[in-house]
Amino acid sequence: MLVALTFSVGKLYAGGGAAADEIFTALGWIVVIILAARIGSAIEKIGQPPVLGELLAGIALGGLALVGITWLEPMRTSVVMKFLAEVGTIILLFQIGLESNLQQMQRVGWRAFFVGIVGVALPFVGGYFLGQYLFPELGTNAHVFLGATLTATSVGISVRVFRDLGVRASTELSIILGAAVIDDVLGVIILAVVQGLVTSGVFDIVAVVSIVIRSLLFLVGAIVIGGRVAPLLARWMARLSRSTTMKFAVPTAFCFLLSYIAYLGDLAPIIGAFSAGLILDRVYFSIYQAPGIVESLERELLPDLVEPYRSRLLRILDTYRLHHIEELIQPLSYFFVPMFFVLTGFSVDLRTFAAPHVIVGGLLITVVAVIGKLCSSLVAGPVRRSVVGWGMVPRGEVGLIFASVGLSIGVVTAEEYSAVMMMVLLTTLLPPIVLTFLLRRKQLS
Amino acid sequence: MLVALTFSVGKLYAGGGAAADEIFTALGWIVVIILAARIGSAIEKIGQPPVLGELLAGIALGGLALVGITWLEPMRTSVVMKFLAEVGTIILLFQIGLESNLQQMQRVGWRAFFVGIVGVALPFVGGYFLGQYLFPELGTNAHVFLGATLTATSVGISVRVFRDLGVRASTELSIILGAAVIDDVLGVIILAVVQGLVTSGVFDIVAVVSIVIRSLLFLVGAIVIGGRVAPLLARWMARLSRSTTMKFAVPTAFCFLLSYIAYLGDLAPIIGAFSAGLILDRVYFSIYQAPGIVESLERELLPDLVEPYRSRLLRILDTYRLHHIEELIQPLSYFFVPMFFVLTGFSVDLRTFAAPHVIVGGLLITVVAVIGKLCSSLVAGPVRRSVVGWGMVPRGEVGLIFASVGLSIGVVTAEEYSAVMMMVLLTTLLPPIVLTFLLRRKQLS
Repeated sequence: MLVALTFSVGKLYAGGGAAADEIFTALGWIVVIILAARIGSAIEKIGQPPVLGELLAGIALGGLALVGITWLEPMRTSVVMKFLAEVGTIILLFQIGLESNLQQMQRVGWRAFFVGIVGVALPFVGGYFLGQYLFPELGTNAHVFLGATLTATSVGISVRVFRDLGVRASTELSIILGAAVIDDVLGVIILAVVQGLVTSGVFDIVAVVSIVIRSLLFLVGAIVIGGRVAPLLARWMARLSRSTTMKFAVPTAFCFLLSYIAYLGDLAPIIGAFSAGLILDRVYFSIYQAPGIVESLERELLPDLVEPYRSRLLRILDTYRLHHIEELIQPLSYFFVPMFFVLTGFSVDLRTFAAPHVIVGGLLITVVAVIGKLCSSLVAGPVRRSVVGWGMVPRGEVGLIFASVGLSIGVVTAEEYSAVMMMVLLTTLLPPIVLTFLLRRKQLS
Repeated sequence: MLVALTFSVGKLYAGGGAAADEIFTALGWIVVIILAARIGSAIEKIGQPPVLGELLAGIALGGLALVGITWLEPMRTSVVMKFLAEVGTIILLFQIGLESNLQQMQRVGWRAFFVGIVGVALPFVGGYFLGQYLFPELGTNAHVFLGATLTATSVGISVRVFRDLGVRASTELSIILGAAVIDDVLGVIILAVVQGLVTSGVFDIVAVVSIVIRSLLFLVGAIVIGGRVAPLLARWMARLSRSTTMKFAVPTAFCFLLSYIAYLGDLAPIIGAFSAGLILDRVYFSIYQAPGIVESLERELLPDLVEPYRSRLLRILDTYRLHHIEELIQPLSYFFVPMFFVLTGFSVDLRTFAAPHVIVGGLLITVVAVIGKLCSSLVAGPVRRSVVGWGMVPRGEVGLIFASVGLSIGVVTAEEYSAVMMMVLLTTLLPPIVLTFLLRRKQLS
């Protein structure tokens, strides 16, 4: 037999049987997801971005259980599938980082910061008061939980819309990305605070300060140190081999490394992936090209150029350097990224939307969620505010996880959880439609 | 927070904590594996194929635990990592299938068949008698088990060597691949027979016949039906979209689909992956190209051409069609394939080689294992027999799984298991060295 975990033997060896089954059944699941994503992306023909099609395809797959097809159901708890989805978000944000520009991010820095802060504060406050209105009998903890559930933006959806529409470099996108980073840091803080308040009734200032410091350390450290270390690492690796495999391995390893470090620093891994892409934007990969024009330009011409010629040259050199990395990453992206969106759609449980008051509650929560993020764009400065606002609207799994934690410790009811899920569904499906309309409108005018 | 399984929340939600930890720690493991593979591949500088470097790097990583570094140890049982390794073998065999040629396989068909049969029978018989010699007190079941453990070729290693050395189309490779398919089918049969004999004392002829029929059904069905269905599927998908994403999705989905079906049919998934590559070799992907020259040539010229012009045109068209698929798959290959080889090396437990009689037993078993497969090449016909023989030598995980099953039901001792592991190690490391020497020697002459 050819080397593989041989299933038949796996079934014999009871312990490995279940794991082996998951691994091989996952092969079949992947086929379904790939095909569902491709069919869903046919939504392009009616002018919508493929990401919406992938989400809808996932929802459709999730609904198969309702008609008796349960083969996919184990996907909901499969570690392998969750891992593939996680890598999907990492690769996506890595690509965004590669296409983004550190100077661009720095230019919008403060504006993104304010958008992020407002985009967390407003939904939190709004959710708190909405909770008081919807279920006053449940107490402060439940209201705080609802507010916290509304804070986290799921930026993956927005950036996919921008990419699907071919919008690569835009100030709005940079602000959204910067705000998403702030959003993540603040979300971690809120999580720690709420967790402490609810479980022990104590506002654990030490934990909060520790998290803030760790997050800032990561962000600053990754960008500053990474910018220094990465070129050295690249040069050393190049001495081992100038092969294409190396050109693939170093950026990929760097991306996963920063993602892992972000996780260790209590941040979402995609912050690390995005940072990795940003950093590689400025790393001297010229050593991978045939020695010659790129190196000569960098050594002999670049240091003496003044603006705007310096930036122009850098941009040309960067394009030349990066094109190859992006080409190499793209097939990984084709494979992993749709996994995430289809599985996100799949995770929606349509059966919970049956009750009328769940629907009403869900709609109200959605309104608060949308308005809260839309208002954050008011501090975004001179950009298309509606684009930034709607770009911050998508909520995702994190709100659901938060709500399910609340469910398990008794501060969130099952109906509240379903209403939150409805909010997640609507804030996932609406923004692609709205953003597409907004981004296309500007392109025409 | 950005959408991801947020670890901090994951740790809160105890159930998801362990799974979330595995997912995110896997990111770190992947970094280590990618870098270890790249460093290991520097073995090229001393004339050895990169695959050997990846295997050795894996062994080195496995040895880290001996010096107190245990961070990687959970990789041994991680479902996620096993999945990545499995996909690695699938992608590798898919690529081999793409580069292979169905006619070539058919030409060597019978010779591969005989090599496969002898390559299973001889090691089995040799192992049986060696078992009688090494541990006569253990009884027939133990001897039969040892024989069965020696039957399965791990073809992934051999094909990597061919690729690493740039040998794409060779009769030896085709024979090895064909023999490996036969080897897999026979291995499944032997597994069923031995399993039945040992657990119930009964030679279950029904199970055996059922397996043979299923295997043949798959092989024939995949190649015949696949050859018919795949063009239709491709045409339908193309109507949805002529995008590059589609060009990536359809071959990838097809590869995973056949791998999954092979699993359902009780064969190793890589048989399916290899078949998928072979089939795509003949599928009319011309619909993906700009309508024009390829389609015109296929419709208007090809049907009327006689040999050798027909084959020549087909080859040119195939090259034009396939080049894009191979380019799209290559980055997936860069990512997944080294996972498999590094993890294979990692799975070796060096501590078990401490006892002298384990070493002696292991060496004897290795000799029988090597000679058994080398002799299989005697029926290979007019080719470089040493290349075919050594290409069939590598054993892998399957032998270990077999042995561990035997361990768990009491017909295999712990020392025997360690000896088998030594055989696996030697038959994994030696063939790349020998094959490299043999293949280069012929290239010079």
